[in-house]
Amino acid sequence: MAQKMKAAIFVEPGRIVLDEKTIPDVGPLDALIRITTTTICGTDIHILKGEYPVTPGLTIGHEPVGVIEKLGSAVQGYHEGQRVIAGAITPSGHSAACLCGCHSQDGAGSRHGFKPMGGWRFGNTIDGAQAEYLLVPDAMTNLAPIPDSLSDEQVLMCPDIMSTGFSGAERGRVTIGDTVAVFAQGPIGLCATAGARLMGATTIIGVEAVPARVDIARGMGADQVVDFTKVDPVDEIMRLTDGRGGDVAIEALGRQETFEAALRVLRPGGTLSSLGVYSGDLKIPFAPFLAGLGDHTIVTTLCPGGKERMRRLMEVIASGRLDTRPLVTHRFNLDQIEEAYDLFANQRDGVLKVAITP
Amino acid sequence: MAQKMKAAIFVEPGRIVLDEKTIPDVGPLDALIRITTTTICGTDIHILKGEYPVTPGLTIGHEPVGVIEKLGSAVQGYHEGQRVIAGAITPSGHSAACLCGCHSQDGAGSRHGFKPMGGWRFGNTIDGAQAEYLLVPDAMTNLAPIPDSLSDEQVLMCPDIMSTGFSGAERGRVTIGDTVAVFAQGPIGLCATAGARLMGATTIIGVEAVPARVDIARGMGADQVVDFTKVDPVDEIMRLTDGRGGDVAIEALGRQETFEAALRVLRPGGTLSSLGVYSGDLKIPFAPFLAGLGDHTIVTTLCPGGKERMRRLMEVIASGRLDTRPLVTHRFNLDQIEEAYDLFANQRDGVLKVAITP
Amino acid sequence: MAQKMKAAIFVEPGRIVLDEKTIPDVGPLDALIRITTTTICGTDIHILKGEYPVTPGLTIGHEPVGVIEKLGSAVQGYHEGQRVIAGAITPSGHSAACLCGCHSQDGAGSRHGFKPMGGWRFGNTIDGAQAEYLLVPDAMTNLAPIPDSLSDEQVLMCPDIMSTGFSGAERGRVTIGDTVAVFAQGPIGLCATAGARLMGATTIIGVEAVPARVDIARGMGADQVVDFTKVDPVDEIMRLTDGRGGDVAIEALGRQETFEAALRVLRPGGTLSSLGVYSGDLKIPFAPFLAGLGDHTIVTTLCPGGKERMRRLMEVIASGRLDTRPLVTHRFNLDQIEEAYDLFANQRDGVLKVAITP
Amino acid sequence: MAQKMKAAIFVEPGRIVLDEKTIPDVGPLDALIRITTTTICGTDIHILKGEYPVTPGLTIGHEPVGVIEKLGSAVQGYHEGQRVIAGAITPSGHSAACLCGCHSQDGAGSRHGFKPMGGWRFGNTIDGAQAEYLLVPDAMTNLAPIPDSLSDEQVLMCPDIMSTGFSGAERGRVTIGDTVAVFAQGPIGLCATAGARLMGATTIIGVEAVPARVDIARGMGADQVVDFTKVDPVDEIMRLTDGRGGDVAIEALGRQETFEAALRVLRPGGTLSSLGVYSGDLKIPFAPFLAGLGDHTIVTTLCPGGKERMRRLMEVIASGRLDTRPLVTHRFNLDQIEEAYDLFANQRDGVLKVAITP
Repeated sequence: MAQKMKAAIFVEPGRIVLDEKTIPDVGPLDALIRITTTTICGTDIHILKGEYPVTPGLTIGHEPVGVIEKLGSAVQGYHEGQRVIAGAITPSGHSAACLCGCHSQDGAGSRHGFKPMGGWRFGNTIDGAQAEYLLVPDAMTNLAPIPDSLSDEQVLMCPDIMSTGFSGAERGRVTIGDTVAVFAQGPIGLCATAGARLMGATTIIGVEAVPARVDIARGMGADQVVDFTKVDPVDEIMRLTDGRGGDVAIEALGRQETFEAALRVLRPGGTLSSLGVYSGDLKIPFAPFLAGLGDHTIVTTLCPGGKERMRRLMEVIASGRLDTRPLVTHRFNLDQIEEAYDLFANQRDGVLKVAITP
Repeated sequence: MAQKMKAAIFVEPGRIVLDEKTIPDVGPLDALIRITTTTICGTDIHILKGEYPVTPGLTIGHEPVGVIEKLGSAVQGYHEGQRVIAGAITPSGHSAACLCGCHSQDGAGSRHGFKPMGGWRFGNTIDGAQAEYLLVPDAMTNLAPIPDSLSDEQVLMCPDIMSTGFSGAERGRVTIGDTVAVFAQGPIGLCATAGARLMGATTIIGVEAVPARVDIARGMGADQVVDFTKVDPVDEIMRLTDGRGGDVAIEALGRQETFEAALRVLRPGGTLSSLGVYSGDLKIPFAPFLAGLGDHTIVTTLCPGGKERMRRLMEVIASGRLDTRPLVTHRFNLDQIEEAYDLFANQRDGVLKVAITP
Repeated sequence: MAQKMKAAIFVEPGRIVLDEKTIPDVGPLDALIRITTTTICGTDIHILKGEYPVTPGLTIGHEPVGVIEKLGSAVQGYHEGQRVIAGAITPSGHSAACLCGCHSQDGAGSRHGFKPMGGWRFGNTIDGAQAEYLLVPDAMTNLAPIPDSLSDEQVLMCPDIMSTGFSGAERGRVTIGDTVAVFAQGPIGLCATAGARLMGATTIIGVEAVPARVDIARGMGADQVVDFTKVDPVDEIMRLTDGRGGDVAIEALGRQETFEAALRVLRPGGTLSSLGVYSGDLKIPFAPFLAGLGDHTIVTTLCPGGKERMRRLMEVIASGRLDTRPLVTHRFNLDQIEEAYDLFANQRDGVLKVAITP
Repeated sequence: MAQKMKAAIFVEPGRIVLDEKTIPDVGPLDALIRITTTTICGTDIHILKGEYPVTPGLTIGHEPVGVIEKLGSAVQGYHEGQRVIAGAITPSGHSAACLCGCHSQDGAGSRHGFKPMGGWRFGNTIDGAQAEYLLVPDAMTNLAPIPDSLSDEQVLMCPDIMSTGFSGAERGRVTIGDTVAVFAQGPIGLCATAGARLMGATTIIGVEAVPARVDIARGMGADQVVDFTKVDPVDEIMRLTDGRGGDVAIEALGRQETFEAALRVLRPGGTLSSLGVYSGDLKIPFAPFLAGLGDHTIVTTLCPGGKERMRRLMEVIASGRLDTRPLVTHRFNLDQIEEAYDLFANQRDGVLKVAITP
């Protein structure tokens, strides 16, 4: 099968272009997926801008929805034609990291079984999902069948956005009755808000200034949304919580200001759950850190992957607990992907997420 | 009872002096303890130097071993003459923080039940233990009877040093087979080492340069001790672990260098358990933090208190699992406490901890 | 204050009567509450029938809503006239059990700090809430102010029913995407259903036959309700879950059949969270227990108490996440309490819970 | 490779015989191991007696130590000639169960990804280790290289005995200062004792009557050993703990009496960690279960497997924390295996474990 397909390829900083590529061969543990819907992530923009380096020629994208085209010889339990998703993170399942439950830092093949961000392969170390076809490694660990009742767009946020956003609440160990502050209500922050809601937080305060996002935040579970352009968000959250602060604060932007504000609104003994991708050193300010004596917990999380994670996220959608379709604000054909990148990179027209259909 | 007692009193930065004070009245929930042994903590030196402000006139010290002299009218379950310790942290037991298991941030009487470091009262917000008598608040929450088999010096490290040091391993969630690095082998770092050993770590690497501390570190559980004056400790720990790094890294000094080194030796998904008291902002370096995508956990802990904690620590001593007497390098009478402060503040003569007996 | 009040008093098996009692004195740590609303619990019926022995002359009831009439001399942070609730379980806060986070087994005053069910005092070891006045011990640990926005009936389920029911989901460690089966949809089972919903379960299957309870179950979060009089509930739950079974099964009745059914629907590695009060030995059947090799967890829970628990439960109500008023099916004056007992003990007229107002 | 090897084969209840079998073919994910040492497990005796049914013709045994003879085409990260062990449980790594951290209930290929005891394949659903060669499935998940410093006999207990025994303490969540009772000091109970010691328990009470086992128990960490033939073990444990009971009780025999005794010595809120394989229904007695109101936790565990587990257990040995060689009381050549079964099945001559070398 030396057939060709279209794929969005990183050429050099500033240039991701649609080009032709050979449809890959299928190894014994792989599955070839025909992509039916995919999307562009903020991380892809970091790649586009050259801020996160990948090898020129790589196909970008890590959020696949598709149909099984061909299964590797050793892959069991699936059939061709089956609708599936795979997570942005595709752990092997057999590394030391996986066996410790730390699938995102999968070090399959590495000496110690852990590799920094090693689970992130699509559009990072192997070809990604913004293409007509996608080779999914370790298919039995990663392919999750889509329930018949769900459309592509209903599950499009599962591979990365929902998984990452929910992990903000999960790693923050939100419990019933918690107060949770979520800094930034972009796609991931919105899903962190939804995750906090699903886990039983009773006071959820989002921080966001864009009106459309504020509206979606309320719809996805925020009890209050603080506009940081009008009030100091730390002061306002302390006011809204009557001086108590949050049990959990979720950072969903990746900036010093939001990281620091998250710490400032945290009660002693609280958890700062950080989802953002930072672009430099971070500072932990002395006073709100209580000189290191505040019984604080700071956790970071790389998007959880694997088929069971995907199954559970799709269950959330199928059960009607959450509808992420409001996040899909624009739709493009794969042929228009350069245009989609232009819109998304410049955050024009109120874009939250785009749907790309080959 | 307007009798007088001797007490080490903070006068002004640079001056802690032994002076006379009235023996305090005993409220219904209090107990008055006649101190038989106490000690000086690094935190007391911060107070001495004016780096941590307390009210002039306050009695310093938070590590009491003594005998019950008088019980408050509502205190049940103890008797006068009983040998007891109390933790450095004396939680009320009834605040929201306590009811959440976060006793060190006890906010009894505060609006929300949480108060930054609110559990630390002795020698901070109320008179402390470097005196002939000590008033213990919320006595039923805090007084722990000393087993007959144990001497004062055997339990002298329980109120703070062991409790804090062990918490480094506990909050790091050390499990059987872990590799743990402990930065600095002062009294708290040594107890962190011992705690990691007690919890099943199989490779424990201390970082320390003082030969006497290196020896005690080996005796208390370190498999290896790295001399940071001779090798780069990060490189050496990575070498000793064959490039794998630690599952848990414990910071027990309170400096940027050690915090950062702890992060650098941590495997992806590992836990940095910080015990140090920092004196300024901290920096989280970009690369070892994996831009926030390393599934790291950073925890800080203020010394756990309460009588059950003390009981368990004394059980560790009584069972022979650990002997902390090697930490007591010098002994003084309370009358000599200014001399003891001078020795301890200047870390002369290989001092680790001093025993003060009124 | 040798004034008299009315109280529902256990006389002998079969007889709880309304009688006069002296309003109790207030000790230094106590608070006297004027009861404004209370209710009858299934446990009270066990007492009535003599199945659970209490001392004749004891006032029954453990679900108080009221107003502070008088505070003990050592009680701070409250004021007379304040509307409050206290949990059915009133831990001291200072026992070893409390300091371990096991407040319901509070052993204040006992030799080891643990006492079986020691936290349950109201209507068990001290006078209870079915009276005009109630003495609350360890008031600072137990009094939780009621938000102004909430009526008595809105918070009436917090002291026991909600706290117990929610604990079924919490101790079962329900996570996002879980399948949860809840056996019996009485008041506690209904709150277990609501708790599972609040914690993110996406498939919640209740088991119940009474049509009114089935309706409320759906309103409080059940996705499906299985009528055990029409189908075998184990078979039906396996059918509904396509053979997978539940991640968590909650027993909320206290019978061998439901305990066993809960185990039978549990997937390997799942958790059986038992809330029921059993009246004899229980049998764990061999096959579904996988001979002890199923990685199962079985947990039991006695209603969590303490003011912070109550605050959080009232937050759930205040935030609009749950409305438990549908559980209050009947209302009586305290003068009619014998009639209320008769109705409730015989489960007539579709009664779920009654509200009793002095 | 149609070569022949010797293997211990189940023929019918009462008969396991040494016979010839074809050395198996190696699939892409498999590895063929030349066995250098193996052993017989109590479970194998259940198979021998027909109490646990397996297919006639199956090779028995699940505790392999060996050398890699041949690697499957897709297996990376190992080399032929490498000394390795594999756990008794060989999870796939990619099932839903594995992705939830429940590797022993691995349901690879099953509809829902969970299968009761599905991780146990050797000598259960596929040919086992009592043979000259062993085919290890999912080799990358399961093969753990043996450190050069360790002999076969030093690691022989890792695949099952240590992994199972330690899990008793781990699933019991033993913490520093705990009191732990371990019922029966056979090989697994001894390792549970060692595990409790490694995790920081300070009072460990074994229950055992065989003098040789009592001695090893003391050497492996028991502070006390109760001879149940001389005293009532429940009474004696309550006496030794001054009436307090255990925080954790570990059942390591698989009998009603020991399960029940474990519950009886448990403090309220404690954990019963069950390791035994039961042969019928179990009874939970009413009184010590506190009618279901004791905040108890009961956990069962099937031996944890996977290469990372094996690596950690071998680290315990390599670090000198534990030496399990005293458990190997007898040695046989594979040719003598029928004799070894006879000795072991009849528990003659003080046998604990045998070493079998082909």
